Amino acid sequence: MAASPHLVFAGSATLDMIFSVDALPVGAGKILPRRLVQAAHGMATSAAIAAARLGGRATLIARIGDDQNGDRFLADVEAEGVDCGQVRRFAGVPTPLSAVIVDKEGERLVVPYYDHGLGADPSWIPDALITSADAVQVDIRWPEAAARLLALARDAGKIGVLDGDIGPLEVLNELAGLASHSVFSEPAAKQLSGQDDVAAALMVLARGFPGFVAITAGAEGCYWFDKREVCHARPPSVVAVDTLAAGDVFHGAFTLALAEKRSIEDAVHFANAAAALKCTIFGGRLGSPDREAVEALLAR
Amino acid sequence: MAASPHLVFAGSATLDMIFSVDALPVGAGKILPRRLVQAAHGMATSAAIAAARLGGRATLIARIGDDQNGDRFLADVEAEGVDCGQVRRFAGVPTPLSAVIVDKEGERLVVPYYDHGLGADPSWIPDALITSADAVQVDIRWPEAAARLLALARDAGKIGVLDGDIGPLEVLNELAGLASHSVFSEPAAKQLSGQDDVAAALMVLARGFPGFVAITAGAEGCYWFDKREVCHARPPSVVAVDTLAAGDVFHGAFTLALAEKRSIEDAVHFANAAAALKCTIFGGRLGSPDREAVEALLAR
Repeated sequence: MAASPHLVFAGSATLDMIFSVDALPVGAGKILPRRLVQAAHGMATSAAIAAARLGGRATLIARIGDDQNGDRFLADVEAEGVDCGQVRRFAGVPTPLSAVIVDKEGERLVVPYYDHGLGADPSWIPDALITSADAVQVDIRWPEAAARLLALARDAGKIGVLDGDIGPLEVLNELAGLASHSVFSEPAAKQLSGQDDVAAALMVLARGFPGFVAITAGAEGCYWFDKREVCHARPPSVVAVDTLAAGDVFHGAFTLALAEKRSIEDAVHFANAAAALKCTIFGGRLGSPDREAVEALLAR
Repeated sequence: MAASPHLVFAGSATLDMIFSVDALPVGAGKILPRRLVQAAHGMATSAAIAAARLGGRATLIARIGDDQNGDRFLADVEAEGVDCGQVRRFAGVPTPLSAVIVDKEGERLVVPYYDHGLGADPSWIPDALITSADAVQVDIRWPEAAARLLALARDAGKIGVLDGDIGPLEVLNELAGLASHSVFSEPAAKQLSGQDDVAAALMVLARGFPGFVAITAGAEGCYWFDKREVCHARPPSVVAVDTLAAGDVFHGAFTLALAEKRSIEDAVHFANAAAALKCTIFGGRLGSPDREAVEALLAR
């Protein structure tokens, strides 16, 4: 087997406080949670960790503060074997922080805070890191870096994957125009396409962007556009206890499989299985599986 | 003027992450907050700080972890001039943490996490601290300590105030049976009395407990039972931007006024004004007013 691919992830880095509750809140008041887990998260961060657990070599490019939460973030991510040499710390700025509330069915509410003091300029990121990598994956929380890295990957003929979650539509449009592969969340795909139906949204987005387009739809799995057709693969059935970071695990596994030169269909099945396994464990990306577990589930 | 009274507060100590959002969440999904403030909170803690800002000498009895959040909690509370010599730290236990989401109208959702590793035993609290104080105030998050301190205060003929927020009914019943003054939140009062109407709830509670009974009802102010009558005082009208900790500020101000030997009516007006001023500032108890501001509002 060849050396494992080198993947670069850029974007969101947060310290998450994940509260386990019986039912999600529906307005003002007080709810007493049963559990609390604190861990480094963020879309790009969780995807990088997912890819590392699955056997990829992962580098994270991200922005955090120089506070105690930032120390904790770094310790968490480095412990997963992800290279954090390109995580830049900003003086006097709080590390992004998310409150996450997860109910008994695994559904979650996320409130992520990013400080404006995190510098947007991506010019310090070394070009060679991207051009020498096998694939790059970006999210939309740091658009300036995402655009620069996707353009660099495109010009170098590398895989450039966009994790297209909800955010400003002009940002999604710009980045999907640069990516070789755009994988949208269902809410983002519907917003961006103006369509209420997943298949219809997929058709609109596939016509609008030059690269491969897919949509992740939670327990329904993944829809993608291939050879003028809407394809669909449902994940293996599992008992979900926490869907937090399931999309991030999907993205990290998908990008790794692409970098391993697997077919789109194989990559989707691999990512579906990884994300499904994640949902069986409480604590967001802490439940991200290793390769053995994913392959065992796929072989079942 | 005599020396300012010495007040002892015992109970909840949390580090709060307060997110400012446009609208409170109504289910699963992601909402992007506009602001984040982190600060030491908890009912007893916020009340102690409120009393200190209003000129009282305040001691806090509470349990936190030996983690970085605990360091931050202590630094916050000590900076307010509250004596933290009786805040005990537990090894390997996370400091209690609350996620708080505040909407544009100042309404809030609170998710407070208390770890089971915080030891419940209150026997280390020195009796003399209570018997030498002018008043003690407890909340229901540490029932063992609350019961012990209220009993000590009662036996020494001191003021013992219960902050009766929602929680197990047997705890509320036991503590209200020991307190010289019980001030319930509206939801707790309704739950404990089985009554849907505030005045009816007050009648039931006043008959059931030996001491003074009152109910705080948000913007409606305070209801209390005096000389066989239901009394009611509305707070001064303000533009509320954040009601978080308004009840705690009310309790701290009320206990201070009692310890200053003011009448119940004066104490309620003083506490109403302090709580109303708090609501005009974002950031929970960070908006707790000083005495000058309260007296200016009352003189208006």
